Amino acid sequence: MNSLSITTRKSLMLFSGRAYPELAEEVGKYLDVSVTPQSAYDFANGEIFVRFEESVRGSDAFLIQSCGVPINTWVMETLIMIDALKRASAKRITVVLPFYPYARQDKKHRGREPISARLIADLLRTAGAQRLMTVDLHTDQIQGFFDGPVDHLFAQPLLTGYVGARYIGDNLTVVSPDSGRVRTAERWADRLGGAPIAFIHKTRDPSRPNQVVANRVVGDVADRTCIVVDDMIDTGGTISKAVKQVLEAGAKKVIVAATHGVLSDPAAERLANSGAVEVVLTNTLDIPPAHQFEQLTVLSIAPLIAKAIHEVFEDGSVTSLFDS
Amino acid sequence: MNSLSITTRKSLMLFSGRAYPELAEEVGKYLDVSVTPQSAYDFANGEIFVRFEESVRGSDAFLIQSCGVPINTWVMETLIMIDALKRASAKRITVVLPFYPYARQDKKHRGREPISARLIADLLRTAGAQRLMTVDLHTDQIQGFFDGPVDHLFAQPLLTGYVGARYIGDNLTVVSPDSGRVRTAERWADRLGGAPIAFIHKTRDPSRPNQVVANRVVGDVADRTCIVVDDMIDTGGTISKAVKQVLEAGAKKVIVAATHGVLSDPAAERLANSGAVEVVLTNTLDIPPAHQFEQLTVLSIAPLIAKAIHEVFEDGSVTSLFDS
Amino acid sequence: MNSLSITTRKSLMLFSGRAYPELAEEVGKYLDVSVTPQSAYDFANGEIFVRFEESVRGSDAFLIQSCGVPINTWVMETLIMIDALKRASAKRITVVLPFYPYARQDKKHRGREPISARLIADLLRTAGAQRLMTVDLHTDQIQGFFDGPVDHLFAQPLLTGYVGARYIGDNLTVVSPDSGRVRTAERWADRLGGAPIAFIHKTRDPSRPNQVVANRVVGDVADRTCIVVDDMIDTGGTISKAVKQVLEAGAKKVIVAATHGVLSDPAAERLANSGAVEVVLTNTLDIPPAHQFEQLTVLSIAPLIAKAIHEVFEDGSVTSLFDS
Amino acid sequence: MNSLSITTRKSLMLFSGRAYPELAEEVGKYLDVSVTPQSAYDFANGEIFVRFEESVRGSDAFLIQSCGVPINTWVMETLIMIDALKRASAKRITVVLPFYPYARQDKKHRGREPISARLIADLLRTAGAQRLMTVDLHTDQIQGFFDGPVDHLFAQPLLTGYVGARYIGDNLTVVSPDSGRVRTAERWADRLGGAPIAFIHKTRDPSRPNQVVANRVVGDVADRTCIVVDDMIDTGGTISKAVKQVLEAGAKKVIVAATHGVLSDPAAERLANSGAVEVVLTNTLDIPPAHQFEQLTVLSIAPLIAKAIHEVFEDGSVTSLFDS
Amino acid sequence: MNSLSITTRKSLMLFSGRAYPELAEEVGKYLDVSVTPQSAYDFANGEIFVRFEESVRGSDAFLIQSCGVPINTWVMETLIMIDALKRASAKRITVVLPFYPYARQDKKHRGREPISARLIADLLRTAGAQRLMTVDLHTDQIQGFFDGPVDHLFAQPLLTGYVGARYIGDNLTVVSPDSGRVRTAERWADRLGGAPIAFIHKTRDPSRPNQVVANRVVGDVADRTCIVVDDMIDTGGTISKAVKQVLEAGAKKVIVAATHGVLSDPAAERLANSGAVEVVLTNTLDIPPAHQFEQLTVLSIAPLIAKAIHEVFEDGSVTSLFDS
Amino acid sequence: MNSLSITTRKSLMLFSGRAYPELAEEVGKYLDVSVTPQSAYDFANGEIFVRFEESVRGSDAFLIQSCGVPINTWVMETLIMIDALKRASAKRITVVLPFYPYARQDKKHRGREPISARLIADLLRTAGAQRLMTVDLHTDQIQGFFDGPVDHLFAQPLLTGYVGARYIGDNLTVVSPDSGRVRTAERWADRLGGAPIAFIHKTRDPSRPNQVVANRVVGDVADRTCIVVDDMIDTGGTISKAVKQVLEAGAKKVIVAATHGVLSDPAAERLANSGAVEVVLTNTLDIPPAHQFEQLTVLSIAPLIAKAIHEVFEDGSVTSLFDS
Repeated sequence: MNSLSITTRKSLMLFSGRAYPELAEEVGKYLDVSVTPQSAYDFANGEIFVRFEESVRGSDAFLIQSCGVPINTWVMETLIMIDALKRASAKRITVVLPFYPYARQDKKHRGREPISARLIADLLRTAGAQRLMTVDLHTDQIQGFFDGPVDHLFAQPLLTGYVGARYIGDNLTVVSPDSGRVRTAERWADRLGGAPIAFIHKTRDPSRPNQVVANRVVGDVADRTCIVVDDMIDTGGTISKAVKQVLEAGAKKVIVAATHGVLSDPAAERLANSGAVEVVLTNTLDIPPAHQFEQLTVLSIAPLIAKAIHEVFEDGSVTSLFDS
Repeated sequence: MNSLSITTRKSLMLFSGRAYPELAEEVGKYLDVSVTPQSAYDFANGEIFVRFEESVRGSDAFLIQSCGVPINTWVMETLIMIDALKRASAKRITVVLPFYPYARQDKKHRGREPISARLIADLLRTAGAQRLMTVDLHTDQIQGFFDGPVDHLFAQPLLTGYVGARYIGDNLTVVSPDSGRVRTAERWADRLGGAPIAFIHKTRDPSRPNQVVANRVVGDVADRTCIVVDDMIDTGGTISKAVKQVLEAGAKKVIVAATHGVLSDPAAERLANSGAVEVVLTNTLDIPPAHQFEQLTVLSIAPLIAKAIHEVFEDGSVTSLFDS
Repeated sequence: MNSLSITTRKSLMLFSGRAYPELAEEVGKYLDVSVTPQSAYDFANGEIFVRFEESVRGSDAFLIQSCGVPINTWVMETLIMIDALKRASAKRITVVLPFYPYARQDKKHRGREPISARLIADLLRTAGAQRLMTVDLHTDQIQGFFDGPVDHLFAQPLLTGYVGARYIGDNLTVVSPDSGRVRTAERWADRLGGAPIAFIHKTRDPSRPNQVVANRVVGDVADRTCIVVDDMIDTGGTISKAVKQVLEAGAKKVIVAATHGVLSDPAAERLANSGAVEVVLTNTLDIPPAHQFEQLTVLSIAPLIAKAIHEVFEDGSVTSLFDS
Repeated sequence: MNSLSITTRKSLMLFSGRAYPELAEEVGKYLDVSVTPQSAYDFANGEIFVRFEESVRGSDAFLIQSCGVPINTWVMETLIMIDALKRASAKRITVVLPFYPYARQDKKHRGREPISARLIADLLRTAGAQRLMTVDLHTDQIQGFFDGPVDHLFAQPLLTGYVGARYIGDNLTVVSPDSGRVRTAERWADRLGGAPIAFIHKTRDPSRPNQVVANRVVGDVADRTCIVVDDMIDTGGTISKAVKQVLEAGAKKVIVAATHGVLSDPAAERLANSGAVEVVLTNTLDIPPAHQFEQLTVLSIAPLIAKAIHEVFEDGSVTSLFDS
Repeated sequence: MNSLSITTRKSLMLFSGRAYPELAEEVGKYLDVSVTPQSAYDFANGEIFVRFEESVRGSDAFLIQSCGVPINTWVMETLIMIDALKRASAKRITVVLPFYPYARQDKKHRGREPISARLIADLLRTAGAQRLMTVDLHTDQIQGFFDGPVDHLFAQPLLTGYVGARYIGDNLTVVSPDSGRVRTAERWADRLGGAPIAFIHKTRDPSRPNQVVANRVVGDVADRTCIVVDDMIDTGGTISKAVKQVLEAGAKKVIVAATHGVLSDPAAERLANSGAVEVVLTNTLDIPPAHQFEQLTVLSIAPLIAKAIHEVFEDGSVTSLFDS
Repeated sequence: MNSLSITTRKSLMLFSGRAYPELAEEVGKYLDVSVTPQSAYDFANGEIFVRFEESVRGSDAFLIQSCGVPINTWVMETLIMIDALKRASAKRITVVLPFYPYARQDKKHRGREPISARLIADLLRTAGAQRLMTVDLHTDQIQGFFDGPVDHLFAQPLLTGYVGARYIGDNLTVVSPDSGRVRTAERWADRLGGAPIAFIHKTRDPSRPNQVVANRVVGDVADRTCIVVDDMIDTGGTISKAVKQVLEAGAKKVIVAATHGVLSDPAAERLANSGAVEVVLTNTLDIPPAHQFEQLTVLSIAPLIAKAIHEVFEDGSVTSLFDS
């Protein structure tokens, strides 16, 4: 016999970094696939070791890592896990980063800076990732940094669905906390049925770099329920200032909504005291109890990721998940 | 003797595509270097042929191409010229594209679309371009699409310098024609000493994709001199609508300013009749007589490109050209 | 469950550029697969936009583009479509170029020229094409320019089959129009049962480059039916001169046969008036009515392309299609 | 119909270089797959030509080459066969090199040397090999030279199994012939149930490079059955000297064991006269009759390779083959 | 004028990561070049930002990073700095890692492990490093992991020079703490004029992986001054056990010498109490006061690195630095 | 001081493989540069080792290898030497292959064949060659196989100069030995002032592959001095048959001329007895005494190679060497 022939099968396998294993497990539940067991630990000097406990040969591997703090550790762990999958003959490797690390450094703001978001894309590719899945990139252009297919998921329908239902009947205005997010606010406004939008105009003194000299609300917010929207909240400085300014400008009520809750200190404190009645986030990143506060609502991103992984595995359509 | 040793010299050579040779010649005048003579013509079926008439071996080659209409022809010519430079042993190849082609397709707006701006960057790299110089990218992130150094030049100082001097004493408001350019407007406002900003809010019906149902001016424009700013003007539809809306909202006077004058039909007619008192552009693209109109002012980008090329050749600093 | 396992299926999908959609549709009929619907249009400045209307995820994609005039536009469209297929997670991308663009620039004739045929191969690869299918390359070596499998189809059996049947009984001589195609003529002669061959010898004056000073027919053509063969006919200058010279040398009748009918002006006129009794071409390129003429016979290449695509999809043998 | 869909099958095909076809055939017998027929011959000037006689399209190709003498010829043949498989559209190409060529040049011992083992890995990759299977690398780090999955098989269980059974009851000491293989000896000792180990310490004069001035046995060998172990035996100089020294140091009996029998002249003579009672090798390389001698025992590596290929093809686990 | 021609100059510039800037400064002093000033800080979520304060265009850049704890942070910082140098048009980028991170994971010990040392090499290359300089790699083969020139510096002459001078007159034995470092011990012995060597044989139970059941000193150590040598000391477990065993086996005095002092807790305590009279290390890594102890001697590696950088910059010979 | 700045110098260094060192030495004499000394030898199993005896850091390296028999050995040696140059930090590596190996396999003649000439180009590139210099490629398209600059030198002026001078006054006809070299014959004819050309037409039976059934001279050769030209002579079968046929067709005298004298057995005997009065070759390959014969004239290619290397090193023009 000149060849041995068999029908091809493919197997979806799930892998999880150590940053936030609960999310991968939740995704696994929706898919009815458990996370592949592994040994992962740090050497005394911090070098990471990973070994999978079961054969991954020929698998359609989905590796979920939620890059919170310490972010460089989780990025390195992701790269090392991809390398291990590649060398163990996984057939296809899709890395799932609900929060894309270093997304804010997506361009040179001035000379002699890195473009770290592109670097991350290239590092993932070099390690062996063939596909990338991620949620609400800081800028959509980052899709183009990765040399391969990117499944870009949108949390906005989840967030607008929640906010729209909960604040039905309110006179809503969508507010961008700065001039760079007005387009995002516009998309929210469309989803919420045509609400007006506003933004905070920051005046800078060109002779003193990075120095904001005044903030001004542009657009109508007086007597309205304002939703301040952003893609991520890190230390919460910009957002909580925006909440205050909107309130000072006469808003009746302010809600904050964002996809990624980085919530570095003192974000929780700032948000709790900002005057916002509710802060709505998703769990693309782990929000540990110490970073939680009374007004916080966290929506789970796991069902969306699970659906998208399922479409990718079954050669379905991820785009169709976002058709209205 | 085991080796033959000489002092190394380097030579700047200028090359120009056929799209807009006048710009390259103007740049050459500032540098005191003439454009390298070449044979370039089209075969009967449109295939392009290029041959340099002088040795380019070891040169520090700067190839200037201004990708106007027919844009695909000029892109292909650029790639073919780079290939010829590479195979003729140019030492370093910097491609200078004052207008970056396909910049608007810098992301997948919906599924199953290309990211043509990334593709262009990869094609340039594959052909042999090691460096890229360009002016006012549609989005700054495109810098990260090219796998190598990018010298990103800003025409804004040129434009704000002109507008600021000419309309000194007016009450200026900077207007973004849509929600995606508010950050640009903010940068203009800073340069103009802290002017207020406004933008046009477009309301869409989510059930009918790409359908704008209403436009609204957000911000104060009444009785003010409004400068509508954008990176490029193609058919002029968005811009001339914005001019009209700002006038309807009570503006005293409207000026339009943009870096790239693509000016596809019927842009000239639209702009001429828009109500704007002046339209300020640069010559990153050729603006032939047929596309010119009374209110048009064109500032030359050549001195800036020449200075930047000089800094690159002499290992100086391009960044310093934009320090205030 | 540690993995989710399913049987793998694969799907052939057909895509067509806008250059000559009728060919793709004809191929689709033979395969019983319709061309995937898409949105494709030009922006006002000529930038091309493409979007596929259906999910292409996991597909075995065959993209057919027939690069006629305007050739650079169709090359760019091809690259953009490949990019879109890649980013939309097509599993395998085979680009089908019945006429390989820039094939004539397959070497540096003199210094400081590009090798555009290699450049095209690299651009296709960079965009994401994994395989290439093409018909009768200008030189066979171009196969080696592409870094991946190339299915090189031969139209010669189609052409010799037709000519052999139609001119059965004639005393045939195969004529190469210049010294570079004598090997092609020899292959025709073998297929036609051992006909004699001849060629046109062009004498050049080495001190005046590219200047032909005399043409001479080498080989016996007097009183014979001569078939002048070539891979492509562009402006028809060389071919129609060859026809005349062969007639002057005493040929009884002259037929012209070639695979690719580029037919740039004034090819149709020249061929119609050349004295040839028949000109046989295939439809690897669209031949619009304005380029047709009385003596023209066009054979369809679609059945051959369809069979080859089928073999590729089913892991059969393309080679076997050409075994006698 | 917008697509044509079929169930995917995959086919294992075996290919063999001309170096040692008997090994590939033996592997084929275990797999019940015959080696794919091919035409392979040398042109008069030594250039190699290969053509496969059957379609390999879509196959899961395993190419076995046993790089004995003339080694550069077999390396080149391997690269050429990989190229042919790639261009013939094999779906996956795994190159099986039971003996990895140039493994000893795995680092720069001094300045201005090549790292030929890395070069070989890169050449294989460039030609088109996607996976590598090999046996007992000279150093394990060579796995990391190949940019893709490596199936590293261990012959040690085969060798220790044979030696352990045959010399059961003897007081065994495992001896490394130099300081660089002590770790290998330790692994043997573990497998043999905790035998003591020894090694030969070579004293060099640092002022005279590569000059060994004295050899000394470190560890207890007197009155013991000593097994001198190594990864490969080339000219047998080091090994036969080690055997003699161990005997001079009082060993009762000496056995030699190694995976790769390179056996360049005068290895056979040296080993036959070394005093060793048995020399155990595997057939990763062909050992022609002229290189055989009385004390030689050759164990077949074919079953192990066949099992490993089977696991790779069926997406099983190669690692599990070596679990005790 | 068709070209502008100038004599080429090259400039050495030094850059330092934040891990251990004192080493880069010390190197800079020997070279009479100060470290290029930069802004480098962490965002609240740990993302690193770097910007160089001076133009680096055209420079021959040497970036020194000493990857201690937190090691993943310093690896990422190194990659980001390389990216910034590349995009800022540095002419050549040499990354100087005195301690190569993840060197111990230089092979797959078992299936489904990464080869992190190769991954690190690839990441450096992807970011833009063209050359690598490092000291005493864990295994020499790691040189072959980097796709470019590697300057591999040896600290052994520095260490043996110190130890040989200080313990002149003692009866020295060089001891490897395990079977994998005997070759290193042999090199030490050669440098010390032909001292005998010994090693610790660890017996493992093959049925219980990674379980050492007994340690045995092989070689003569009784009544001798023993130097236990290794490439790095991490937690000090192996080394301090080796010291004790050698003492138990009758050694008169024990010295420990190694290149890299990782010294993770509780290394300092273990070494201080091990019984060794002196522990000699270099400062390839920062050894903070909390990790220092009475018996510790630290030799500076800075002069060697400075000399090597000078040779690289001046196109001299690094190899010659190690000729005896 | 923030940087250390020096004037850059560059050094030409010559390297030679072991295939035909006399050619490199002859080239060196013309350049007044001696070949860099090296250690190069074969291990017992044929593995090649190379080490350069002097620092090559920063050099402009030209490596000359004349790939005669055993050709695979010399190809591998070339790759290994390039690897060593790359890792030793040569600044630029130009490989000079006067005879390009595997040039005849420049396309797939039938399915499932390699394209070895492209493979060779890729292997050279992978090893580290940045530039390629070669003489009279079998087909010009091979230039396009190498991904970088190729200096393609022509021996034709050397050969035509010699033949034209020596046979001045004769009635010359240039003869191509088969249908694939008629274009070459035409170029000869032009150089010789417009001589007529002829070729041998081989008739094949399509049902019996590779079976030539008849040869026929096409063109006038009776009573003329015929020059049979080719790019290379391997076993001399085709050429000596052509000589005989031309003589049978009435030629007065026959001369043979070719660039590459591969001269595999029995070429010397065949040519000596073919009836040709003179056989003119160059020394791109070593022609050992055993392969020489009475009618043989060998012209040295060394001056041409030396001039070309000089132009490349000095950034002059190689093209200008061939301007008439």
